[in-house]
Amino acid sequence: MENKIKKKPLILLSNDDGYDAKGLLTLIEVLRPLANLVVMAPDGPRSGFAGALTITQPLRYQLISEAENFSFYKCSGTPVDCVKLALHDVLTEIPDLVIGGINHGDNSSVNVHYSGTLGIVLEGCMKGIHSIGFSLCDHNSQADFSPITSTIVDIVTQILEQGLPIGVCLNVNFPKIQQLRGVKICRQTKGTWVNEYIKATHPTGKPYFWTVGEFHNEEPEAEDTDHWALEHGYAAITPVQIDVTAYSAMKELQTLVR
Amino acid sequence: MENKIKKKPLILLSNDDGYDAKGLLTLIEVLRPLANLVVMAPDGPRSGFAGALTITQPLRYQLISEAENFSFYKCSGTPVDCVKLALHDVLTEIPDLVIGGINHGDNSSVNVHYSGTLGIVLEGCMKGIHSIGFSLCDHNSQADFSPITSTIVDIVTQILEQGLPIGVCLNVNFPKIQQLRGVKICRQTKGTWVNEYIKATHPTGKPYFWTVGEFHNEEPEAEDTDHWALEHGYAAITPVQIDVTAYSAMKELQTLVR
Repeated sequence: MENKIKKKPLILLSNDDGYDAKGLLTLIEVLRPLANLVVMAPDGPRSGFAGALTITQPLRYQLISEAENFSFYKCSGTPVDCVKLALHDVLTEIPDLVIGGINHGDNSSVNVHYSGTLGIVLEGCMKGIHSIGFSLCDHNSQADFSPITSTIVDIVTQILEQGLPIGVCLNVNFPKIQQLRGVKICRQTKGTWVNEYIKATHPTGKPYFWTVGEFHNEEPEAEDTDHWALEHGYAAITPVQIDVTAYSAMKELQTLVR
Repeated sequence: MENKIKKKPLILLSNDDGYDAKGLLTLIEVLRPLANLVVMAPDGPRSGFAGALTITQPLRYQLISEAENFSFYKCSGTPVDCVKLALHDVLTEIPDLVIGGINHGDNSSVNVHYSGTLGIVLEGCMKGIHSIGFSLCDHNSQADFSPITSTIVDIVTQILEQGLPIGVCLNVNFPKIQQLRGVKICRQTKGTWVNEYIKATHPTGKPYFWTVGEFHNEEPEAEDTDHWALEHGYAAITPVQIDVTAYSAMKELQTLVR
């Protein structure tokens, strides 16, 4: 038999809260024993950047820390830029996983469409790499991630072993809780944001607006949704797909074709 | 019988190329006879902004032009901010349609995940409003939109009449062509971007990167895809859904739940 030394997996990490966010530093700490890590994170907060990429400005990145099987870069761009640029200019091989997080804040339900963390995950997935986003429902910069790290390690280990279907990535959200009740595979909750602005007045008298908002859950009783899982103490794993075609609508839209 | 005067529909317009882009001005021109228009567009280019929203900076908007049944605002934020802020602070009733475009450039295939135009459309759809994005496969700022305007009017008229299913919006792309061969209802093409950066050197000697790239179509022969339709002279209507759950993957992911 061949004496095969099993190579450590290679994981590309990024986030949208910036390179110095506690969630990212926690993720680095728990994944370092498991894998070779390359981290490319934005040089400041990029929450709510979704799949945005930088076109009209030049992009830069720089190494900020290095150790055995570990390199850590910060980048002037968006979360998606971080993934693209790391794959293009830093990594010399395709990573086994792309991971975004741990995000400070909830990325369940329609937040998938605004989240920079999900931008990272979708980008990895579009590049054909198994990709996972981890988020904790706690915006606090000093949030306590300790109750969820062992579950993160479990999920990462399993996805490294079993992979994910092509075109599918994972949006994993954790409730703010000391003891998880378990893990659920969920669908995206139907909901929307309301009361999204606070109007304020600049010293010159001109109005401006801060984006805020409250999430309105349109199906609070639906036990198969990610929001329900989070409300009830479970980690919510929502599989997300790259193909967003509304196949169910194609037939009735034929009326548009003459 | 009641002598009912049919009210003109109300349409909210935005784009991601900025308030002075020819594509937006063309759309305004062709839709004004049809509808009351409120336009809220970014104050500069926001291509590739996807679903990004502005959290850490204050948002501002201002009226730049006004006429009967027409008001035109520019906004400091992203395309999604434009839609949210117009709905929150400008419009006094829910519009019948939200329209993004006409975008200067192709938003078919995976571009849906990067496109600011689609950010507009998804936002309108998440607010429960029928929403359509129009894009022409021509990045030129002086692109010729005249071959596609009558088809745009047809589509808008029909969607005003028949509506769209809940949670579904339209991504409509047009080829750069003098005479459209027709319109096709399509699915999103499988593909990815490659060669995404050009490295350059700043006068100080430090490297930087410009985002560029080439689209790699993974299924060029698939006649039901939006990219195929565009390549063959058809307008491609791709219905897009808010729910991005990968339902097909849920069963096999049960292994993650213990």
